[in-house]
Amino acid sequence: MQLDDATPDQLQALEARLAADHQAFVDRGLALDLTRGKPSAEQLTLSDALDGILQGDYRAGDGTDTRNYGGLDGLPEARRLGAALMGVDAGDVLVGGNSSLTLMYQAMLVAHRFGLAGPDSAWSRQGTVKVLCPVPGYDRHFTVCEQLGIEMVTVDMTAGGPDMDRVEALLAADPSIKAMWCVPKYSNPTGVVYSDATVERIAGLGRIAGEGFRVFWDNAYAVHDLRGFRPLASISEACARQGTQDSVLQFGSTSKITHAGSGVAFMAASALNLGGFKRFLNACTIGPDKVNQLRTVRLLPDRDALMAHMQRHAEVLAPRFKVVLDTLDAHFADSDLGRWERPDGGYFVSFDTRPGVASAAVALAAAAGVKLTPAGATFPHGHDPLDRNIRIAPSVPTLPELEVAMQVFVTCVKLASVRAALAG
Amino acid sequence: MQLDDATPDQLQALEARLAADHQAFVDRGLALDLTRGKPSAEQLTLSDALDGILQGDYRAGDGTDTRNYGGLDGLPEARRLGAALMGVDAGDVLVGGNSSLTLMYQAMLVAHRFGLAGPDSAWSRQGTVKVLCPVPGYDRHFTVCEQLGIEMVTVDMTAGGPDMDRVEALLAADPSIKAMWCVPKYSNPTGVVYSDATVERIAGLGRIAGEGFRVFWDNAYAVHDLRGFRPLASISEACARQGTQDSVLQFGSTSKITHAGSGVAFMAASALNLGGFKRFLNACTIGPDKVNQLRTVRLLPDRDALMAHMQRHAEVLAPRFKVVLDTLDAHFADSDLGRWERPDGGYFVSFDTRPGVASAAVALAAAAGVKLTPAGATFPHGHDPLDRNIRIAPSVPTLPELEVAMQVFVTCVKLASVRAALAG
Repeated sequence: MQLDDATPDQLQALEARLAADHQAFVDRGLALDLTRGKPSAEQLTLSDALDGILQGDYRAGDGTDTRNYGGLDGLPEARRLGAALMGVDAGDVLVGGNSSLTLMYQAMLVAHRFGLAGPDSAWSRQGTVKVLCPVPGYDRHFTVCEQLGIEMVTVDMTAGGPDMDRVEALLAADPSIKAMWCVPKYSNPTGVVYSDATVERIAGLGRIAGEGFRVFWDNAYAVHDLRGFRPLASISEACARQGTQDSVLQFGSTSKITHAGSGVAFMAASALNLGGFKRFLNACTIGPDKVNQLRTVRLLPDRDALMAHMQRHAEVLAPRFKVVLDTLDAHFADSDLGRWERPDGGYFVSFDTRPGVASAAVALAAAAGVKLTPAGATFPHGHDPLDRNIRIAPSVPTLPELEVAMQVFVTCVKLASVRAALAG
Repeated sequence: MQLDDATPDQLQALEARLAADHQAFVDRGLALDLTRGKPSAEQLTLSDALDGILQGDYRAGDGTDTRNYGGLDGLPEARRLGAALMGVDAGDVLVGGNSSLTLMYQAMLVAHRFGLAGPDSAWSRQGTVKVLCPVPGYDRHFTVCEQLGIEMVTVDMTAGGPDMDRVEALLAADPSIKAMWCVPKYSNPTGVVYSDATVERIAGLGRIAGEGFRVFWDNAYAVHDLRGFRPLASISEACARQGTQDSVLQFGSTSKITHAGSGVAFMAASALNLGGFKRFLNACTIGPDKVNQLRTVRLLPDRDALMAHMQRHAEVLAPRFKVVLDTLDAHFADSDLGRWERPDGGYFVSFDTRPGVASAAVALAAAAGVKLTPAGATFPHGHDPLDRNIRIAPSVPTLPELEVAMQVFVTCVKLASVRAALAG
């Protein structure tokens, strides 16, 4: 279907047919949800051995009684798990609580208000603070900036990662840009894996940017492959080559590996950054939940165990992604109604409608009982200037539910597109 | 022993004898630790059923799958446990992660920088910010203020709580005082329980103080009785009577009830305060570890279970407190060498030496292999202006270790006192 080639009469006929299809879905009283990038019950069950796995042995490998207070760095074996997950040295890893978002929030708070390299390095002492946000991106990253009163500057995503020409030009021109958000593997929501060249250029940003610049490298989907492990170039090694080790903070977690709400979060950074972060942490906690760290490590003692576990997740997730992509192919291939990436991992399929259509499509789907992430959510302040990006999260519904939800989705996109063409 | 009545010759003879006693301890090469208020292994073992207690059933009472993301308020049954612990309504309770210190830090951060009642209410918009700190007090409370750049104003503790005449006078005179730290039951470190009159007057502070004033009511030892449950007047009810519900934030946790490093933390507050706090939380987490909340509630399903569990802690702790108090009685009763409270609960015995003696006594103990909390730690910035307070934490050593450690302690206090008298 090419709307641009259709006559007004053809559009009218199409609108009538699609409206009837839509009404038929409304009449079914569906209640389906494609909003949240969270694991299904089937995936969560893969880690149910966690509770009881300690068998009364609460001692870590170094003899630490995990039940008691203390240990800001986390257990040595948990640091090794983080290192295996993120491809870094265990000595550079700090293990936190159940949320890498919390670590990212805290790290940005420290950099902004308290200074990772001491009080004088606080961004807030240097006037206006801006952060680069590749778009579409992760809404929670934007919320952190909003809450801290940091301006967001958007940069478009390409098939190889953020538009690096633009990123470098912005940084060279504006020293008030102090950070950049990145989801380098299976980017949220596009599913893009940053190319080797992109990773190398991001590692070089510390030499272009102003003092105190930090890349927030949210490697949330480091081992969340659907079709075998796909390597990501090492940002740590690239930084070591370029002498920019202090310019990148890496994050990861087991939230989408074990139990989503009770995972273990990791931060990897240079000694300078970890030192500054721990000065802050020391004021606000006596230490993380080490018992949960120990449980996690008992379930996933090494990288082989981790990868075998992720393979089981892939077996649950891959058919769901196939339904989404097959439906989009069947309805939109060779059309001018939308475009999308074909992710090999992660939790999302990102779909771009024709400009000005996304909110109307999401509203139509809601009326038909299919909840989608609000249009615009993948942009700072919830505002997609072209109103076209929709994030599809296929992990939670069952396969039959997903098939119905995707039929609703394509119908709503078509109907909203036709109406927009008629109005335009 | 009354040093004030001793002649210089008597002091000299005493010094020689005590120095010899001290040297004998040094020669034994002891390694004992009275520094930290943390549970012993024996106490931690009381909760070892936690791991495995779910028996594969990860569902909360309302059907929530605790393994997944979400739920900023915490599980309903965990909120009820917090309510039972703190003597408040479950609807006023928010359940966090493993650390009430983190909740307190976050609440002070929000009040200071972001505003519990919206941005305009942020203390930092109103110039200098000061917080009242009863002394001696909890070093971690002071660290929070230090890290946030908040000035601390000390108020002396009395046998019934903080000196309320002084507190009220300070608040009436200085609107830049925005908060007050309180450990109302078995106060850290004095062990004092706030009297009913003190609680009532603290509930009234919101009517004296400037806009945005908050009491940080750290009820860390709410059920940590050594000799049966000792009631504390309800600050919530007092606030309700006086119309000051927004002026108090209450905190508690299961850290010294179950496993210290993996407990569950609670905050109780008015709807206005919880609303402001959750706006902040929403930016920095997707939710707490609900699996751990469920485990905790399975172990401690109601107040009866909680109190029976605390009775078992008391059986472990009471003999340790007895050793400390018996030793102090045996050596210092009817002397002018020190004074101390006789706590009925909590984790500490607070000992005041003669002025100017505490650091020297702590240093002598360290030389003899007995670690004590650094003198001054119970005061803001680690500075005890009279250099006399020492916090004794008897929970971790075994009874025989504690007996030796206390012999060292009294010897060091005597020796340091005699030397100070000789020097003075």
